Parts: sequence; C-alpha cells; structure tokens
Amino acid sequence: MIRSISGGVCAAKGFTANGILCGIRKGRTKNDLSLIVSSVPAAAAAVYTQNKVKGAPLTVTKQHISDGKAQAVIANSGNANTCNANGIEIAEAMCRLVADGIGISENDVVVASTGVIGQVLSIDPIAKAMPALIAGLSEEGSDAAAQGIMTTDTVKKELAVEFTAGGRTCRLGGIAKGSGMIHPNMATMLVFLTSDIAIAPALLQKALSEEIVASFNMLSIDGDTSTNDMVTVLANGLAGNPEITEENEDYLAFAEALHAVTSSLCRMLAKDGEGATKLLVCTVTGADTLTDARIAAKSVISSSLLKAAMFGADANWGRILCAVGYSGAAVDPGQVDVSFRSAKGEIAVCEKGAGIPFSEEKAKEILSEDEIDILISAGNGAFSATAWGCDLTYDYVKINGDYRT
Amino acid sequence: MIRSISGGVCAAKGFTANGILCGIRKGRTKNDLSLIVSSVPAAAAAVYTQNKVKGAPLTVTKQHISDGKAQAVIANSGNANTCNANGIEIAEAMCRLVADGIGISENDVVVASTGVIGQVLSIDPIAKAMPALIAGLSEEGSDAAAQGIMTTDTVKKELAVEFTAGGRTCRLGGIAKGSGMIHPNMATMLVFLTSDIAIAPALLQKALSEEIVASFNMLSIDGDTSTNDMVTVLANGLAGNPEITEENEDYLAFAEALHAVTSSLCRMLAKDGEGATKLLVCTVTGADTLTDARIAAKSVISSSLLKAAMFGADANWGRILCAVGYSGAAVDPGQVDVSFRSAKGEIAVCEKGAGIPFSEEKAKEILSEDEIDILISAGNGAFSATAWGCDLTYDYVKINGDYRT
Repeated sequence: MIRSISGGVCAAKGFTANGILCGIRKGRTKNDLSLIVSSVPAAAAAVYTQNKVKGAPLTVTKQHISDGKAQAVIANSGNANTCNANGIEIAEAMCRLVADGIGISENDVVVASTGVIGQVLSIDPIAKAMPALIAGLSEEGSDAAAQGIMTTDTVKKELAVEFTAGGRTCRLGGIAKGSGMIHPNMATMLVFLTSDIAIAPALLQKALSEEIVASFNMLSIDGDTSTNDMVTVLANGLAGNPEITEENEDYLAFAEALHAVTSSLCRMLAKDGEGATKLLVCTVTGADTLTDARIAAKSVISSSLLKAAMFGADANWGRILCAVGYSGAAVDPGQVDVSFRSAKGEIAVCEKGAGIPFSEEKAKEILSEDEIDILISAGNGAFSATAWGCDLTYDYVKINGDYRT
Repeated sequence: MIRSISGGVCAAKGFTANGILCGIRKGRTKNDLSLIVSSVPAAAAAVYTQNKVKGAPLTVTKQHISDGKAQAVIANSGNANTCNANGIEIAEAMCRLVADGIGISENDVVVASTGVIGQVLSIDPIAKAMPALIAGLSEEGSDAAAQGIMTTDTVKKELAVEFTAGGRTCRLGGIAKGSGMIHPNMATMLVFLTSDIAIAPALLQKALSEEIVASFNMLSIDGDTSTNDMVTVLANGLAGNPEITEENEDYLAFAEALHAVTSSLCRMLAKDGEGATKLLVCTVTGADTLTDARIAAKSVISSSLLKAAMFGADANWGRILCAVGYSGAAVDPGQVDVSFRSAKGEIAVCEKGAGIPFSEEKAKEILSEDEIDILISAGNGAFSATAWGCDLTYDYVKINGDYRT
C-alpha cells in the first residue's frame, strides 16, 4: 500500500532542505542554490548520463559515493559547470563549503549543477551564500530546494509517498528538474530522492539502476541527452526497519515505492517539457519482448513530426506508424492498432496497419486536451511499455533560440 | 572535369519529362503528378528506406527493377499511398497506366508517392490526367516534373552535370523532393536521377549504394525516417561510351559525377528543410575512423537544441559538445575544437573541450547568415565527414502542427 504524502524531499525522517538565490546568473529571480541534508549518514546510490561529455559534478559525486555513503546534496542551477577547465576544482569547493558548514566529511557530499554548458562557474556567490543556506535548513525546505534546481522549468517537481517495510512506516520523496535536453540514456536530468528506509548501499543501487530502465529512460523531451543527468537516492535508515540486505519482501516494497515516485516524476517532467502544452503518454502493448515494446514507445514520443501534430491536435496516426517502423523494434506494421485517448474519450484510428474511418471532429476534441494517451497494440505478444513525452511547440523553439544570453 | 549544365532530369540524352496538376489533394495549386521517360530501356538502380513501414510504391518498384532495367518513373505528391489496404493495387495501376500510354511493359516502370500516410489514394484523378501527362512529355519538362513531387518544399530541386567517360561526354541530372520526415537510413526522400552513360546495372547499383552512405545518409531535417524514401537512377547508354562493366576509370568518373550531384542535392534539401531559415553544414575532421566522423557530424546537425540555437543565431557551442558526446562516436571530448563560419567570417569558440573568449557580437554576425558551417576538429585522426541539416523554427512547428487536414 503506497500512499501520497506531502513534504517532498523532507518527507523522510531526518532530512532537511533549503534553497536560496545566490546570484549565479544575472537576472534570475528564482532560487539557484539548493541543499539537502540527512541528520545521519545515509546509504547512497546514483545513476549518471552516458553522454561522453560529462559535467564535472558527476565525476566528483561518483567518487564521493564510491563507498556507498553520503549525507548531503548541494546543487546549483544557472550553470552546468561542464566543459570548463576548472570544473572539478569548483565542484570540490562546493562540497567543501557544505562539509565545513555542517561538520561532515566532504566525501559525504553529492554535488550537481545544471544550466549553461561551457561558462566558468564562480565559487564566489556560492561561498557567500552558504552560511545562510545552511542556517535556513528545515523540514519545510523541500519547496525552496525544488525551486533552486529549476532552469526553464515552469513548475516545481516534488512528491513523496509512504509505504511499509519490515513492519515500519517508511517514506520516500524527491525533487526533480526538467525540462530540456532530456532523452535519458541509463540516467536522466537531475532527480534527488530521499528515504528513511534502512537498506544496504548495494541493494539501494540495484533498486535504482533497475528502476531507471522503466522510468527515466522512457522519457524524452527533445532527443538531446544531457551532459549533467543524474539521479541520486539517499536512504538514512531512520524509519527503523531491519536493514534490507537481500531481495526480500521489504526490498520489493521499496522497489514498488520507488517506481511510484519515479513514474510520477516522469509525468511531471514530460508535462513541463520546454514549451510543452500537452503531456503525451505512449503505451505499447502486445509486443513480443519488453525491449521491443520500450523501443517502439520511446520512438513514438521522440518523433518531432508526431509531437508537432499533437501540438496541432491533428490525429496524424501515419506518423505513429512511421516512428514505430523506424524504431528498430521487431513489430509487424500489418498488426498494429492505434487509438488516442484523453479526458474527452477514446478513438480508434488505425487497425492492422491501415486507416479506419473516424470522426475528425471527435479526434480533434480528444486531442485538444492537455494529457493525451497514445495507445498502440503491436500484436498478440505478452509485453508492454510506457514512454512519456510532450508536444513540440513554438515556445520550444523560442526558449532554445536564445537560452544562453 | 565535372561541369554544371541545365536541363535537370532531362539533361541526359533521350530523357523527357512532364508534370501536371491532377487534383490528388484538394486545394493544391502546384503540380502533383510527374513522369520521366527514357526513349530506350535503361539500366536501373535504387535504394529504399529502412523503415519497416514501407510505402506500397517501394514494394512495386523493387519488383519492377529486379531485372536491373526500367524505362519510366511515375510519381505523385499529396498522398504517400502507405498504410492503405489497397496500396499495392493502386501502385500497380499507376504503372499500368504509364505502360499502356507509352507502349512499354509495366515491369519497366518505377513508381513513387509522397504525402500523407494512411489515406486511400484514388486512381481516378491519375487515370484521367495520364493522357495529358504523356502528351506533354518534353526535353524541357524537368521543371514541371520537379514541381510535381513537391510537398512542403518551398523550392524545386533539380540540377545536372556533364562529365567524360570512355571518351564521350556523359550527362547526369536529377530532381528531388524534401523537406520533412528526413533522417535517411540507407536511403532518403525522393530523388530521381537520370544519365545517358552506358553502365551495367550491377555497377550502377554499386555506385549508388556506395554514394548514399556519404551523401543522403548524412542529411537530417527532423530525425524522422520516412516510410517512402527512395533514390533511383536510370542510365540509358545514349552517350555512346563503351558500357562500364568493371570498376575502371570510367566507373570512377561516373562515381565522382554522382557524388557531385547527390551532395548538391543534400545541400538543397537541407536548406529547404521544413520551416528552415538556415542551412547547417557540419564537418568533423581529425577523427580516428570514418564512422566516428560521420556519427559525430550527423548527431550535431540532428540536435533539436543546437538547431534552435542556430535559428536564434546563438553561439551555444556547449550543445555541439553535448551532441558529440551522446553520439556514440569514439571522440575524446577533451580534444575537441569548435568554430563557426559563414560568409561573414569564422570564429573559434571552443578549444580542447573548453570555452575560449570570443566576441559575442562577431559570433552573432556570423550566425545571422543563411548558410552556416559548423567546424569540429576531433583530434589528430585522419578521417573527416560532412553532414547537412537546418535550423529548427516556429514554422517547422506550424507546418507540422496541421499538415494533414
């Protein structure tokens, strides 16, 4: 039984957070520096972008959690600290500032940055703001921290759930930032998860790594895999459950809670994709293998042509067949059925790979909603998969035509 | 010595063409039906999309040129004749109409369609227009034929060259249609090439198949691989050269002419990409293998983020590093140099994977031109490759938000 609760990244026992505006980038009015702290050392796990160009913070974080432990997360927006000669130095300095301020080892600090690539990140505004950032840490700080990692995001992404493991109530919450350069490959944008469950680091990593494949890796905003993608989870054990050290019932309960949180975050991220007016959720059923279902679903929500058609509420299902066709999935086009669904109803548009008569008026009505399900039956196979994306709009072009300056 | 000449698809001896408006799609004012005819049977070769969803015309064409011979090409726009239950039947009927009209076998007719996927194509307007289409065939018909295959294209694409083989002057010309759903995979949009060179069908196919890899496969407008991509070439031997039956000097002369024509068509197609305001030509040099150079160059011109930045004349080179990084090419990010070039000059923006100081004003001036070279040095390797693309604009979204209705 998984139940939604409030508190975001501070919902789990022992976690505090804060976010402030330190002035990394001129003109910004939202927070740009966030801190999350556990009152005790926590098991830590992470997955990172597979882009060969990697932000310096990822290198530092990887090293710091190599022992499976961490206690704090520092993250800034406005500058990705990537492709800079002194990137590692700055990322390490950020960790040191946190470590000195709260009295822990700098090796227990996770560091992340997001924003423009290739501009030198000055440590000055961060150093200046650190005392206030630390002084303001509180159990109500998730909102401020979620804001501090936003770039072109228009809404904060945070949520938390409660579940039971080892007879104890456990909590898992998180914050995330979207909303462009998202086409994850074994990892994703920035997502920070916290839990009070007791779990061995190796199993925490296993649960996270396995979850990513079905959630963040099935999300695409624009086909560009970021240099700074990172998902981390800290689990501090304060829920008091017996530590999970094997793949038992408690492990499965945690994995289920993790899936509830990550798939909800995927929806939130896709819906707030840069310039997006519509959330697209594509579900492929009836595939012969899980991989085929995933490849086909992801190809559909990644198609610029389909994304533009959805923006225009145009039931152009041929573009769906086309995207399934070039996806590389082993799907027989002659077996494919397609329908669209939203709050306004459902309409079938293609059966066995060919068009069927349908009401254009009804289709337009269904596709004018802001959450669209694209339902694809690939045949009689046993496997299905879901991918999340958004429409392609004038505003995507506008946002990215002059993001840097 | 390769020389540009006029005449397009009719530049080669013995070829006539025509295009007319037969009314396949309501509201269209441009031609929508094109015919190219050789006065004698010609060696024929083709490459096709690798999309699993294939237009019915491709299936029929493949069968018709399986003997290495063809004499005519019939093509329509306004409807792709793809994902229709009666697609094959209609494509065959189109060939039969041509064959009966000009007195050849229907097995010597190449057929192609482009336009909306999944709407039944009526043979009626085509049958009705066929007599006039045939009656109007002429050596001045390339323009009309080029227009007849345009969909969202804003300009016609045709060109021709003259070269020498076997002591005789030979000609090679072509017409093409872009401009969306272009991200070729072993083939491309619609391109019809004609030559009067004498060449054995097997060598014609070999030359075409090898050329595609360096030209049309290095072109991307929007990342969507079409269901109807096809490149065909007819060579009727009327130039009088000794038939090319081995990879000799004449073969190389033909291959060189072919490359001149296809790479020029790539530029034309990319520049007229849907909604495009700028041609992007990305050249990667210094790679360790040809494949790495090609993968990296294609990844850069396929990036939605970079394409939007180019629309905004924003020198956001971080997105170039990012796209190289996720491309899968074996390139060391720390060795990458980047510069931009146009008619207004050249500016270096990144050296050894990190930003260098540059004039934003000068960069803006360079990037405000309508043809931009993106120059990437990947290191000290011996291989280079070029890819063609275009910027991502409001108009791309507009065109594709409501293309179908």
